[in-house]
Amino acid sequence: MPEIPFQRVAIVGLGLMGGSVAKALRAVGYEGQIHAALPSAAAVAALRSSAEPWRIELGHQLPEVLVDADLILLATPPKVLLSQLPEVARWADPAAVITDLASTKNTIACRATEIFGARFVPGHPVVGSEMTGFPAAREDLYRAAQVVLTPLTGRTDELALDKVRQFWMALGAGVQEMSPQAHDAALAATSHLPHLLAYIYLAGLAPQFPGLENLAGGGLRDFSRIVDSNPALWADILQENQQAVRQQLQQFQDNLRLVEQLLTDEAIPDLQTWLERGKTVRQQFHFPPVLSE
Amino acid sequence: MPEIPFQRVAIVGLGLMGGSVAKALRAVGYEGQIHAALPSAAAVAALRSSAEPWRIELGHQLPEVLVDADLILLATPPKVLLSQLPEVARWADPAAVITDLASTKNTIACRATEIFGARFVPGHPVVGSEMTGFPAAREDLYRAAQVVLTPLTGRTDELALDKVRQFWMALGAGVQEMSPQAHDAALAATSHLPHLLAYIYLAGLAPQFPGLENLAGGGLRDFSRIVDSNPALWADILQENQQAVRQQLQQFQDNLRLVEQLLTDEAIPDLQTWLERGKTVRQQFHFPPVLSE
Repeated sequence: MPEIPFQRVAIVGLGLMGGSVAKALRAVGYEGQIHAALPSAAAVAALRSSAEPWRIELGHQLPEVLVDADLILLATPPKVLLSQLPEVARWADPAAVITDLASTKNTIACRATEIFGARFVPGHPVVGSEMTGFPAAREDLYRAAQVVLTPLTGRTDELALDKVRQFWMALGAGVQEMSPQAHDAALAATSHLPHLLAYIYLAGLAPQFPGLENLAGGGLRDFSRIVDSNPALWADILQENQQAVRQQLQQFQDNLRLVEQLLTDEAIPDLQTWLERGKTVRQQFHFPPVLSE
Repeated sequence: MPEIPFQRVAIVGLGLMGGSVAKALRAVGYEGQIHAALPSAAAVAALRSSAEPWRIELGHQLPEVLVDADLILLATPPKVLLSQLPEVARWADPAAVITDLASTKNTIACRATEIFGARFVPGHPVVGSEMTGFPAAREDLYRAAQVVLTPLTGRTDELALDKVRQFWMALGAGVQEMSPQAHDAALAATSHLPHLLAYIYLAGLAPQFPGLENLAGGGLRDFSRIVDSNPALWADILQENQQAVRQQLQQFQDNLRLVEQLLTDEAIPDLQTWLERGKTVRQQFHFPPVLSE
């Protein structure tokens, strides 16, 4: 395992994603300091005992959490994150590397680079869960997961990028790089569209038949698990990436109309060809491992 | 647990569904005979050693498998099942109760009742897996699962219905009754449509971006698991239930167009309301338990 090139890590937002970074750091034997910023004194009090075994220092004042940190991880939802940038910039050590975990990259990469300069490294670990909060955070969330780093060509500092890459690899993740635009277009396809489809499908099931809720198998259970995610967070993500999502949605609708024509007795071989194509495509994907309960 | 009211059970088709019935019978201590019909001598030879610990007698000649059976379970895919009805009728004991496991009920309930008369009890356990074959069959597949029985009013024998109900309850399943038409309409909504959506979505992902296959998280993994199911079986199911599926598809498209309008900066609260509705609906569903690996 590569070494972690930071002595003091500050995590802004200690939910599922940020909390899992803290737990993963301890799980791989990181002995440096871990500080986390929570929104209020009450939030600090609520998490005190569960954070203690992981040796995470909690605070709700950015100046004290960020002081001397050489890595600052922004782990709040995209809208909150954007609103926090000026305040983080005000208190961050001038030498600190800053990165984030948000699911959409274009706006954040541009805005944060304007504010922090070359030392901001935009990132997105392509994992998650319908669970939320620090208690659901897990030390193995990023193990064998893919982290996408989306540096801005000619702007993001190479050394900062290397350090953030090394950081994620030390936690067991694979790291790949692409432009923020390529990331947002790809994730609209692999994540944002399926979330939207599952939400629309479930919302439409509501008033149909009495007793429908007892007629669901494991297929529907797994297909719709993503609908247990946080609707406010997903409304943000979908709005933020609306152009790419709308494009995916158009293409899906075109395909849907094609397949609809095949729901006849005569077209069943063509229908089967479509289904086979779907199965073949799925088999090309590398999914993160199923985490044990 | 209720007792199993049959002395000799014959299962036609020993795949995931039929095989799981055989294993479940032994797991709850059933001491009667279990016979299974396979398509060929080669299939019998291939399964001999894995069926032996479960004390399942394998055969590929219907007369010898069905002789003296007081329960005949038809566990082949819908199209195969329909083609087998005359041959099963020819060799079935005149006193045997006959039931099936198929995912669509209207055609099978009518056709099989014409052939067998009142002693045919149409059934559908609302469980399954993307796995196939006897080795993937599991003794706990039906435990806590819902089985829908779809008797024909005024035609299906009450005593035969009671016995099949008792049979499933002895395996740990919950049993409910509805008309075949109500079943097919409901399952179009809870099972056939999500399968179709996932297949269409995956098929459409294919040629989009290089490297897309490394950008999938656990959300897509679970959302698309049903696409690993057998395309030939699913083409059959979708064709068989095409009217109800087309109706569901129309409604889904209407909703999709409504939500598409909400992918703007201004409509984000309305978008969030849709997402919340989806989440609320999901929470009303009773899903079968996740089976351990």
